Amino acid sequence: MDTLMNMHDLTTVEDFNEEDVLHKIHLAEEFKNGKSVELVRPVYAMNLFFENSTRTHTSFEMAENRLGMKLLEFEAQTSSVTKGESLLDTVKTIDAIQADIAVIRHPQNDYYKQLLDANLEISVINAGDGSGQHPSQSLLDMMTIYEEFQRFDGLKIAIAGDISHSRVARSNAMLLNKLGAKVYFAGPEEWMAEDLEEYGTFLPIDELVDQVDVMMLLRIQRERIDENAVIQFQPHEYLQKYGLNFARAERMKPEAIIMHPAPVNRGIEIESSLVDGKRSRIFKQMTNGMYMRMAILTDVLESKGLIRGGLN
Amino acid sequence: MDTLMNMHDLTTVEDFNEEDVLHKIHLAEEFKNGKSVELVRPVYAMNLFFENSTRTHTSFEMAENRLGMKLLEFEAQTSSVTKGESLLDTVKTIDAIQADIAVIRHPQNDYYKQLLDANLEISVINAGDGSGQHPSQSLLDMMTIYEEFQRFDGLKIAIAGDISHSRVARSNAMLLNKLGAKVYFAGPEEWMAEDLEEYGTFLPIDELVDQVDVMMLLRIQRERIDENAVIQFQPHEYLQKYGLNFARAERMKPEAIIMHPAPVNRGIEIESSLVDGKRSRIFKQMTNGMYMRMAILTDVLESKGLIRGGLN
Amino acid sequence: MDTLMNMHDLTTVEDFNEEDVLHKIHLAEEFKNGKSVELVRPVYAMNLFFENSTRTHTSFEMAENRLGMKLLEFEAQTSSVTKGESLLDTVKTIDAIQADIAVIRHPQNDYYKQLLDANLEISVINAGDGSGQHPSQSLLDMMTIYEEFQRFDGLKIAIAGDISHSRVARSNAMLLNKLGAKVYFAGPEEWMAEDLEEYGTFLPIDELVDQVDVMMLLRIQRERIDENAVIQFQPHEYLQKYGLNFARAERMKPEAIIMHPAPVNRGIEIESSLVDGKRSRIFKQMTNGMYMRMAILTDVLESKGLIRGGLN
Repeated sequence: MDTLMNMHDLTTVEDFNEEDVLHKIHLAEEFKNGKSVELVRPVYAMNLFFENSTRTHTSFEMAENRLGMKLLEFEAQTSSVTKGESLLDTVKTIDAIQADIAVIRHPQNDYYKQLLDANLEISVINAGDGSGQHPSQSLLDMMTIYEEFQRFDGLKIAIAGDISHSRVARSNAMLLNKLGAKVYFAGPEEWMAEDLEEYGTFLPIDELVDQVDVMMLLRIQRERIDENAVIQFQPHEYLQKYGLNFARAERMKPEAIIMHPAPVNRGIEIESSLVDGKRSRIFKQMTNGMYMRMAILTDVLESKGLIRGGLN
Repeated sequence: MDTLMNMHDLTTVEDFNEEDVLHKIHLAEEFKNGKSVELVRPVYAMNLFFENSTRTHTSFEMAENRLGMKLLEFEAQTSSVTKGESLLDTVKTIDAIQADIAVIRHPQNDYYKQLLDANLEISVINAGDGSGQHPSQSLLDMMTIYEEFQRFDGLKIAIAGDISHSRVARSNAMLLNKLGAKVYFAGPEEWMAEDLEEYGTFLPIDELVDQVDVMMLLRIQRERIDENAVIQFQPHEYLQKYGLNFARAERMKPEAIIMHPAPVNRGIEIESSLVDGKRSRIFKQMTNGMYMRMAILTDVLESKGLIRGGLN
Repeated sequence: MDTLMNMHDLTTVEDFNEEDVLHKIHLAEEFKNGKSVELVRPVYAMNLFFENSTRTHTSFEMAENRLGMKLLEFEAQTSSVTKGESLLDTVKTIDAIQADIAVIRHPQNDYYKQLLDANLEISVINAGDGSGQHPSQSLLDMMTIYEEFQRFDGLKIAIAGDISHSRVARSNAMLLNKLGAKVYFAGPEEWMAEDLEEYGTFLPIDELVDQVDVMMLLRIQRERIDENAVIQFQPHEYLQKYGLNFARAERMKPEAIIMHPAPVNRGIEIESSLVDGKRSRIFKQMTNGMYMRMAILTDVLESKGLIRGGLN
């Protein structure tokens, strides 16, 4: 296990190797099968979400609770950030108050670098930075794929939608390449990201839908799109041109699955009833997410010597 | 006990019979007298309030804490609802994350029907739907009346104020009829609700005030009134025409009590000092509310097999 | 110990004597050295912050958690206050729901007097009232000074900045006088407060900086300044005229320390790197604050008979 990364913080999966990913998946599966851990003392976490979220926030909160951690409230709108305090000073404050872990979502790419540079006692877990990374989502996606196929090597995986604005697309494309899967991108051409071209081939969804093992759809993040870059589509038009409609779903391979990080725009990137259908792993992703976050938190707690008896 | 309703969810008191109500009151009184229960495992609740509230929210939260449940944060303004996620998908999400109970207040009447149709693991407790039902408030009102008179049969109860917009008026009028009490309505005639006429007689407050055992006042819900339907009253004018002022309070029967679901508009529907006076049960209603919510939650937990040893 | 004030509530330090302050400091130091207490039953606190805050809110929350208390959520923006409910009725509500302690920050000076007059069961701890008092901040400041110098008598302490709008300046100036320290004020002359002249001498910062043991800077509270009273300074101009810049810091006495209640406007009232420098006790103040709030809460709990075995 000594090749595993140090986990005082978890801010990106860029440096993860296959072993790091498989370790996280195995640990998450252990929690899913009933594993529990004991803390050596009360441990305090604060979830600092500067962008709206239900899923990720609640999932981390549930994971923290299940590990026996205590939570400190934080609301961006009523914090001293509204008095002009910087993110660094806010985190230094909660470090001074002796919280142990800060789970942070922030609109600024790479926000976490300044926090790591400050060498704080408090651990930082990145729950999404701008259009950068979203490591816990990537890892739960890997877990969900691995549960289904027990491998990554040789799998064909399409990521379809608003690629350029998606931190999920970015993190997943990188990891899947490392794990030996073959990645494809689909969606409106102007939404492809140049810096992702090295990770996969961009193709029309119709050429991919009967080839891939996983059809991973992205939410059209309306709030991220520049207001001037008028969306050229009516919702139904988007679904027919780029989304997963019934006709396309029928052409999928027998064992192929549908994934989506949610929240879903039903009827836009995917036909509504497919969300609840038998190929869909969308709600399973959410369940897995909670166990994966338990695994992530546990590795961080373990690096701080806070797990009684350690992990073994 | 086998005639009691199934309590996987509690969304309306429409189908409650006398026994259901008395069971809840007795259970709440047991909690008030020090009863405690033990859970078979950690249980997670989320309070999803899409409308402002201090009383109901805090009361449920205290009840959940006293039963040993753990709470997951939710804020409507920072949730994925702001990204256009539907209520159903939000609740399916927290179901997937394996929360056990969702306590929901929502402005849309009957919002809970789509949730019950989805047959989720998670239990739904309705903490108020639009101008529909507010079952926990009704039950705590019944508890407060029963504590005072040890019966419902033959009691005369006036409900005065903005009847048509009040979910409390609706739930209470239905229940009180089932329980054998005689219901009267008072207030501005244009605020009476046609569909409630079968449950009680509409009369001027001056004809009721010396006849009733309970004078139940409603808050004038300013935020519910159509902006165009200009309120024709100055506050003091309302009090004199329709509210409970000193002169009217003096005409009340010796044992008669004053109730109000609060928050109170002091000086509008009721003379301020009467709120704190000896006839007032307004703060007692709040105390009882916490115990009634313990009873409601306990029946739901019991139906899920989460109470150690069961209720007996 | 019987000369100590009764602590059912802690709303002001105006009546504190030296013994009261030293008692709190000693108790806080005990917690810092690992002391713990046990509660006789579950105890419920609610933090009602009607003004934004990270530090004070989180610090109280951490203190409450470390003492084993349970917290009830409160958000001003979604409470019944938005329906026009008064602060008194809101606090009476949470008293009726049987919460034990309300920690309140509110923009209205002396808001707490009406709450004390109502003789509620619930204890009130003032976490800041308008431009009035901020007792927990004052006490943590006293603790930090005492840790450094083991005395107050004869110390020279400058309080510099927006004196008239600062509840910290007010509370600290009063207490420091009682404790035998000599207080000076600095900053723009129009920001001095007449009613504080009895507690200290107003001088230019350049005449104070090489004389004092403690240079206590205040945040320029932009949100408090009357919108019409245009600030006449550019940020850099303020720093050079009234703030603690490098040149001034170099003239400080060898053992002198820098304090600031935070959040800091880096580069305005103080040169940014001085915040993190070796004279700075700014982050230590935050750490001490958590322990001081444990001491404050403990004295209140003790007065209610909620500490097992009492304090001894």
